[in-house]
Amino acid sequence: MIQVILSNGPRAAPLELAEYGKGGLVGWGTLCGALNGASAVISLVAKDYPKVIDELTGWYNQTALPIYKPSNPETEISTTSISGSPLCHVSVTEWCNASGFDVKSPERIERCRRLAADVAARAVELLNQVVAGTFAPTWTAPGSVGECLACHGTGKAVGNVFGKMDCFMCHERHM
Amino acid sequence: MIQVILSNGPRAAPLELAEYGKGGLVGWGTLCGALNGASAVISLVAKDYPKVIDELTGWYNQTALPIYKPSNPETEISTTSISGSPLCHVSVTEWCNASGFDVKSPERIERCRRLAADVAARAVELLNQVVAGTFAPTWTAPGSVGECLACHGTGKAVGNVFGKMDCFMCHERHM
Repeated sequence: MIQVILSNGPRAAPLELAEYGKGGLVGWGTLCGALNGASAVISLVAKDYPKVIDELTGWYNQTALPIYKPSNPETEISTTSISGSPLCHVSVTEWCNASGFDVKSPERIERCRRLAADVAARAVELLNQVVAGTFAPTWTAPGSVGECLACHGTGKAVGNVFGKMDCFMCHERHM
Repeated sequence: MIQVILSNGPRAAPLELAEYGKGGLVGWGTLCGALNGASAVISLVAKDYPKVIDELTGWYNQTALPIYKPSNPETEISTTSISGSPLCHVSVTEWCNASGFDVKSPERIERCRRLAADVAARAVELLNQVVAGTFAPTWTAPGSVGECLACHGTGKAVGNVFGKMDCFMCHERHM
């Protein structure tokens, strides 16, 4: 069984390696840093890592987060939100919109702490399934991906896009 | 002087660690995998790594890429494009639009190979400046960030956004 080892001991991987992912790459708002760090670990452990990362990222997009409730937290929060996107900017702003808290508030920071715990726990769950031989991917791309790539995908009329994010988070339907 | 060591020898960091970033996280189209991998390395080497990553990412957004021209390439390409974004999806689609090549064509794959070389080379340049004590950051956030965060930034009327990407790549001005 795989466990999360929270250690900076001499034989552990340096936890600092994942820190640059914070705020979606040092505050740029791109890929959520929790997904980035978890994906790096998954890629070192699971041979078929793209499917495990797809499963983790799809779960992240569709799940009301955060789930984790620490005992005696410094900051209490109760709001959850569904990001619909693996991008930090979208994920954070959706939670701020749902909760009404400021983007740099202690509550939003607590939300991202708990979300990072959720992502790490889910990654460990999935890796344990891989180790046990019970990993059965369920993720499928959003409907918009199939719809839009019917023209924009490889070999099609426009042929200028690949991706797995929900197109309609940023683009309007134009057919 | 820092050099890029392309090796999988027993004492080298495993190159496979950065592979999950391909296609902006195994094809999701989020953060460009070249930026992701380079940023991981920068964060292990430079104490003030956020400024170095900002500089690299700002350069990536604003520069006509790819620059690198290998000798005797299997696939020849001549088109360059400016991404305006650190997101794989935007960067790739801008190049496809500029060149007319399909998103899965050998030419587009060659473009991303060369771009990865460009990003690695630029990261090494910046890290050598850090080591030499000559690193002088020049990157500033796009104008849209200041404009939009005047309402959407922390402590402001809406207070629901942080980020450094150009807002107008995905959003329309609405004031």
